[in-house]
This record gives sequence, C-alpha cells and structure tokens, in this order.
Amino acid sequence: MSAFNKLKQHSQKISHFNHLAAICGWDQAAVMPAGGNQARSEAMAELSVHIHGLHTQPQLEEWFAAAESEPLNTQDKATLRELKRQWQQANVLPEDLVQAKSLAGSKCEHAWRTQRGENDWQGFEKNWAEVVKLSQEEAQIRAEANGLSPYDAMLDIYEPGTNSASLDVLFSDVKAWLPDLINQVIDKQASEQFIQPQGKFDTNQQKALGLEVMKLLQFDFNHGRLDESVHPFCGGVPSDVRITTRYDESEFVQSLMGIVHETGHARYEQGLPKSLAGLPSGEARSMGIHESQSLFFEMQVGRSEAFIAHLARLAGQHFGGHNPELFSQANFQKLYTRVKKDFIRVDADELTYPAHVILRYEIERDLINGKIKHTDVPELWNQKMQQYLGLSTEDNYKNGCMQDIHWTDGAFGYFPSYTLGAMYAAQFMSTMRATVDVDSAIRSGDLSPLFTWLEEKLWSQGSLLTTDELVKQATGEILNANHFKQHLINRYL
Amino acid sequence: MSAFNKLKQHSQKISHFNHLAAICGWDQAAVMPAGGNQARSEAMAELSVHIHGLHTQPQLEEWFAAAESEPLNTQDKATLRELKRQWQQANVLPEDLVQAKSLAGSKCEHAWRTQRGENDWQGFEKNWAEVVKLSQEEAQIRAEANGLSPYDAMLDIYEPGTNSASLDVLFSDVKAWLPDLINQVIDKQASEQFIQPQGKFDTNQQKALGLEVMKLLQFDFNHGRLDESVHPFCGGVPSDVRITTRYDESEFVQSLMGIVHETGHARYEQGLPKSLAGLPSGEARSMGIHESQSLFFEMQVGRSEAFIAHLARLAGQHFGGHNPELFSQANFQKLYTRVKKDFIRVDADELTYPAHVILRYEIERDLINGKIKHTDVPELWNQKMQQYLGLSTEDNYKNGCMQDIHWTDGAFGYFPSYTLGAMYAAQFMSTMRATVDVDSAIRSGDLSPLFTWLEEKLWSQGSLLTTDELVKQATGEILNANHFKQHLINRYL
Repeated sequence: MSAFNKLKQHSQKISHFNHLAAICGWDQAAVMPAGGNQARSEAMAELSVHIHGLHTQPQLEEWFAAAESEPLNTQDKATLRELKRQWQQANVLPEDLVQAKSLAGSKCEHAWRTQRGENDWQGFEKNWAEVVKLSQEEAQIRAEANGLSPYDAMLDIYEPGTNSASLDVLFSDVKAWLPDLINQVIDKQASEQFIQPQGKFDTNQQKALGLEVMKLLQFDFNHGRLDESVHPFCGGVPSDVRITTRYDESEFVQSLMGIVHETGHARYEQGLPKSLAGLPSGEARSMGIHESQSLFFEMQVGRSEAFIAHLARLAGQHFGGHNPELFSQANFQKLYTRVKKDFIRVDADELTYPAHVILRYEIERDLINGKIKHTDVPELWNQKMQQYLGLSTEDNYKNGCMQDIHWTDGAFGYFPSYTLGAMYAAQFMSTMRATVDVDSAIRSGDLSPLFTWLEEKLWSQGSLLTTDELVKQATGEILNANHFKQHLINRYL
Repeated sequence: MSAFNKLKQHSQKISHFNHLAAICGWDQAAVMPAGGNQARSEAMAELSVHIHGLHTQPQLEEWFAAAESEPLNTQDKATLRELKRQWQQANVLPEDLVQAKSLAGSKCEHAWRTQRGENDWQGFEKNWAEVVKLSQEEAQIRAEANGLSPYDAMLDIYEPGTNSASLDVLFSDVKAWLPDLINQVIDKQASEQFIQPQGKFDTNQQKALGLEVMKLLQFDFNHGRLDESVHPFCGGVPSDVRITTRYDESEFVQSLMGIVHETGHARYEQGLPKSLAGLPSGEARSMGIHESQSLFFEMQVGRSEAFIAHLARLAGQHFGGHNPELFSQANFQKLYTRVKKDFIRVDADELTYPAHVILRYEIERDLINGKIKHTDVPELWNQKMQQYLGLSTEDNYKNGCMQDIHWTDGAFGYFPSYTLGAMYAAQFMSTMRATVDVDSAIRSGDLSPLFTWLEEKLWSQGSLLTTDELVKQATGEILNANHFKQHLINRYL
C-alpha cells in the first residue's frame, strides 16, 4: 500500500472515532440527564486521548515523507495537503503546554461562570493571566513552526490562509462606514411602530413550525435531526447532522431564526463531498466559510422580504389566537431587522454585530502579539465601544470584556470568523444574483436554485481548494467588504 | 503500581469505550435517522475492533499471572476473578473463527428477515447450516478451554456457573406440572368476560402514563431516560440508563407493561455498586439475574393485584373519553393475566412462556452437543410444541423454528436466561414476603421496602458473588422451581 493510502486509511480510522465523539457530544448537550455527566466526561476524555494518540503516531512522519514523492492527482494532492496540515496542528505543541493550557482554561472558564455575574474583574484577571500567558506561548510555538506572526498562527487554526494584514484591510474598510451607517439606520427606525410577540407560544408548535421552515430550506431529515439544548449548535456528522435550538414560550422569533441559522450550517455539512468522507479534504473549509453558510441562510435568505413572507405566513398558521397583525409580513420584517446599539455580542443585530467582532479582533491581535497586557483589556474595550457604538463599559466588565466564553479558555483567533462569514455570505449572494433569480425562487417556495449554486460552488468543494481559491472560483474575486456594505445599505437604509 | 491495579486501570479504560458504544448504540436504535446508518455502523465497528484490541493486549497475560500472587482482599479477589473471566472469554477464540461466525451470522440473519415471512425453510437452512457448524466449533473450543461440555461452554457466556445438568433438573420439574396447569387455567378462563382497549390512545398520553408508572417504580430520571425504538430495550450505562418502548395507538396495554419490564432492568443497572464502576465485578451478575429483575418488576410487582389497581387508575386518568369499564381493576387484571396457547414466544403470557423456552433449550442443547442435526430441528420443534402446548408447527416454519433472531446469528445458550429469570424473580419475591409487607407497600404507592430489599440483596452486589452464592445469600437456598410453581398456581388457579 502506498504511503498516501496508508495516510488516508489512518484518517478514516480517526474519523470513525471523531464520529463517536460527535454523537456522544450531541447526546451530552441535547438529551443526557445531568447525573450522567461525570461518567460521560470521563469516557469522552479517554476518547480524546485516544484520538490524539492516533494523530501523533510516530510512523506518520515517515508516511508523510514518502507520500510527498508519490505520484498524486490534483485531488489527492489537496487531500495530502490537508492531512499534513491537520497532522502538523496536532503535533506542533508540546504535550505539557497542551495540558497546562487545558487546565488553566478549565479553571478560568469555570470560575468565570460565577465571576461574570458578579462583575468580578479582579478575580477573573488572576486566572485569565495564566490563560493569556500560555496562549502567547502557544502562539509563539505555532508561529515558529509556520513562519507567521504569533496572532496569525492562532488565526490559522480556524481560518487557514487568513492573516491579520488582510483582516486589517477588510476591517478598516468596515470601520470607515459602519458607525455612520448604524446611526443613520437607528434614526430611520426611530419612529417605526411594530408589535412584539407576547407569549404563550407552545413549544410543540414552535418545534412544528421550525421543522416546516427546515423543510422549506431543504434540510435532509434522512441525514439529520432537530433537538433542543441550552446553547444551540450544529453537531453530529455529515451523514447525520444534529442541530439544536432553545425554545422560549414567551416568544418564538429568536428560536425560529436560530433554526434557520443552524440549518445553514447543517446543509453545508450535508452537502460535503461523500467521496471524500473521512478525509480532511472532505471537511468544511474553515470556520469563516461555515459561518458564511449559516449567515447566508439567516441573513441573506432568512431576513429577505421574500423569506420573511413565508415565516410570517407559517407562524400565523401555527399560532392561532394571537393578534393577527403580529403575523403581517411588514411586522415580521421590522421584528427581524431592528437595529440597536447594545453591549452583548450574542444578542446583536446584523448591523452592529461587526463592531463587536472588530473590537475583539483588534484587542486579541495586540494581546497575542504582546503589544498590550491583559490588564489593559477593560480600558481598551471601553474606548472601542465608545468609538464604534457610543457605549461606555467603564466598570461594566460583565457586559464588557467578560461577556464571552472564547477568551476564558484561550480560543484566541476565533472571533474574526463571525464577520468573515457575514462578508462571504454577502459576496456569495451578490454573485449568485447574477445568474439566479433569487427573490422569485424564494417567493415560489422552491429554493432549489439557490441551493444548487451553493452545493456546486461551495459545499461539494469541501477543503479541496484553499479558502481564497474557493472564494475566487465561486465569486470571481477574493473577499472584500463591498458586497457586505452594499447589502447592509440595501436592507437597512 | 501492582499488576492488579494495572488490570483495574485497563478495565476502566475499556469501560469508557464501552460507554461510548452503549450511547451510540442507543442513539442508533432510538434517534438516528436512517441515512446515518452506514457511517454509524462503520464507526461502531472500528470501536469494536479497538475494544477487542484492548481485551487482547499481550501484557495482560503477565499482569494476570502476577496479580494471582498479590495480596488481595475478598472484594479484590472477586474483581480479579471477573476480570480474568472476561479476559478469557475475549481471548479463547481464534480471530478467524470470530470473523467467520460474524459473517455467517450476518448473512443468515439478513436473509432470515425476508425468508421468515416467506416461510422459506429451504433457503434459511442453507445459511443456517454454516452458523450451526461454526457455533459448534466455537462451543468445542470453549469447552476445551474450561473443561465443560460444548453446550455448557456456550451457556457459560450468558449464565456463568449454570450448566445443563442443573437446567435439566429445573426444567424437568417445570415440564412435570406446566402443561396440566396451562390446561386448567385455560379452562378456568374460558368463560371470563373482559373489555379489550380499542384505540385511539394518543402516543403523548401513553408516554406521560409510562413516565408516571416509572416514577411509581422509582426510576432515577437523573440517571436515565425513556425513549422509543422499534425493539424495546434497556441500554446506556449505569449512570445514564436508556430504556425504550414502542407505542401502538390502537392499544396501550403492551407498551405500558413493557415499560414496567424495562424499568426493572434499568433499576438493576442504576443500583449497581458505584464504587466498582468500570470493573466487571460492578456489572450485572448474569443475563438470568438481569431478567429476574425485569420480570420481578413485570410479573411479581406489575401484574400483582395491588399494582394493577395503580395501572388501572392512572390509565383511566390519562385516557378520558373511553369506556370507564375498560379501566376497572378487575378488567385490567383479566387483560394482564390472560393465558393462551400460541406459537410465538415474544407474544406469550407468563404461564405459557416457559414452555417456549424449555423447547428451545432442549433443541439447542442437543444441537450444540452434536446429538441432532440442524435439519432435525423443524420436526423436533413440532413434536415438542404438540407435547407442551398442543399445537402443530408442521410446515409452519415462520411460526415455528424460524421465529427468533437468536439462532440466526448463533447466540446459542441464551434462551434459558428468560425462564431462569422468571424463577429467580418468584424465589426473590417469596423470600421478600417473609420480611416485607409487599402488598401493603405496593398499595400505598411507596414501593421503597421492595426496592430496598432488591438493592441490598442483589443490585449492590454486582458480580462480587457467583450467581449461586448471590441467590443463596439472598434467599437461603439455591434456585429451584417451587416458588415459581407456587406463584403461578396462586395467580392463575
């Protein structure tokens, strides 16, 4: 057997264990009773150790060396590139650093769950110092291994090929027009009247409505499910994608659009190339591209006038007995496009969201590159919130720099993916409109032309191309902020 | 670290992977969409190979040899005995035989799913010949390893310590009085009038009723769940026990008692000693003892007059709008104790069930010991059905020897567990009544005294004792058919 085939076989073996981890992880979040948690966590930790052991088997080095000189076609070359990338990521860090960071991260995150509510920066900062220090060490080692700057080496985990030089350009562009645009839209919306849903909206009806919307979005129920969890997510495996939502009986608006969002993630997974199953070249390209699909579904399709007409109609059918004006298309449109300057990223609307992300990006970039200290973060946060959204977070740590889980366990480099995803989504839609009559398709209720485009250009490509190649092939240009800006202006002004 | 501790650590590692297998197996049966099956089966096969690899690691032989001479307390000695038993079971067969039997079994079972409906004995017999031949080889190898007869070596997989000499005695006893008793009871019931439930019984209400009955039986919902699957089972792990049922909207009687049955299995698992988690000494003692707990719940408690009063009352509360006489205690009693001579084991009542099992035991014993040929089975089946239940299965293979899945993939030695379980359950109840006012406790709705007895005498013992020791310690005598006979006479005559 060729070294390349040995590597492929090994990857498929790992993917089988990843499959079990994904299903047991879904189970833990969606259906496991609380008392099962300790034994489950132990079992999953054992599995992680086993998977890590498979990634770091000594013979892999030899196989990679041999595979480099084997005759491979274009697709196999891409597979080898991604296999090697995954192997390097798994082997670059010394075990003791991985363990130390994992411990410090768990400790910091665990304490944060209480400290945040208590606005306890002093307490948090003590634990977080260690997480930041170890993350800086991690970034340094990664940087030395791949010749990038420390922060870019962290970015590379989530967004291979993206670097802070290009993010600086993209985000400077956005910063140049976003604050003004936000102000204009808020002024425009100031006099708007709309009706907020007021419960009770039965959970079973919300679920039935969600399933109907998933059907409209052509979710493949033969290869996936909808369930509930405290924090909605898209998990499972491409042959069996598990999305979750959380129902709140006092309103249905958020959960419903959450289902649309997760369905975007799910359809990307369901559309990945089956011939490359079990290989990293058959996996999603990056966090940003993954988010581009959920945001394509949520923002480009889900909040379009044509789709909102469906949502309003279907919701009206499921929730009889409420004020019918709640379910008018115009009211739904207002509910789903309301803009507000506020503190919390996860509750932010489409327009203010990038401000939250850019702020985090600028801080984590400088922190990981050693240009600022972790104790500088609250003041920088406050300054940037004032600058981008006109809000002060002075002494308001819990709604400021202590609001996200990401930094508590050292996931630096992840935040940009959210706004990259929004920009990619706008660029994909803009390109798609050149050849697809998007609005007619959505209005007709048969969205196949949109999905055919996404499947052909993106989903079926897995990770065969680099992100830049993928986006250029799909849209004719590399990522830029123009389509995003135009989309926001069209929708909100 | 002592060799014994190394063995314990290794066992706990294996148990973590078994945990993942149990949860993913539950998922596959209870919630997985059909399209996920191929990838899941591949992932679970990979896991099986891995677990088998752990059971057969070469250093274990050395550890077992060293542990034998280490100073161990009584509990540790029991753990070592069970560890060794598990290790020997995993290592006794040559790999090629395991694979050949697995392949032949899959092929036979798969074809059987169609052949049974078509009453196609000729087709089935061709595949089954290979399964029987390989099972005989397996039995021979196991027999040589532990000095038992071939069939006893198969029995030992499911019922360690039980052998056909003692089964012959027990079952001869039953055969001496069962056919007459069945006839007497059928005569007695001939003139009984009762009302059959006639749908529709809403699935959600059936589930709510089932959950209420599980509460009455003190199922621990912090460590378990109720879900649905085509074939009801009890799975998961002791810290998270997953039971399933199947709802039929045309009636609720069967599913409801099925839940009682599975709750018995579940409470045994939930009551296993936590201090021995991950060790075979902390696992259920045997299939027969496991079944004794489900049958204790179903037959000894569930079909008692006191418990049926609860079932009738609760069902009446959940299914308004039906004929109230359906929900009278007297009618429920008749519904749940109706005796009928019939062909199918899984549909059999408490009284005729042992006849179905003894018939199978006698045939599989002689088949595995090479005293009969597999082609003799249909005629033997017909003879024994005539003898025990007065029914002919001539040319009726699908309702005769082709009705069960067990033999199709070579699970010879399993059938006796069902009737051993029924006998153990009767013996436990008979002993319990000497110190516990069982009927008052059931009537009061607080069944704690029963569960305290079971927990102390059985559940908390895991596999620390042999089955005979366990039963003798709990009841003062080894297993005999007297309690079972008396129970059946009391209930049915």
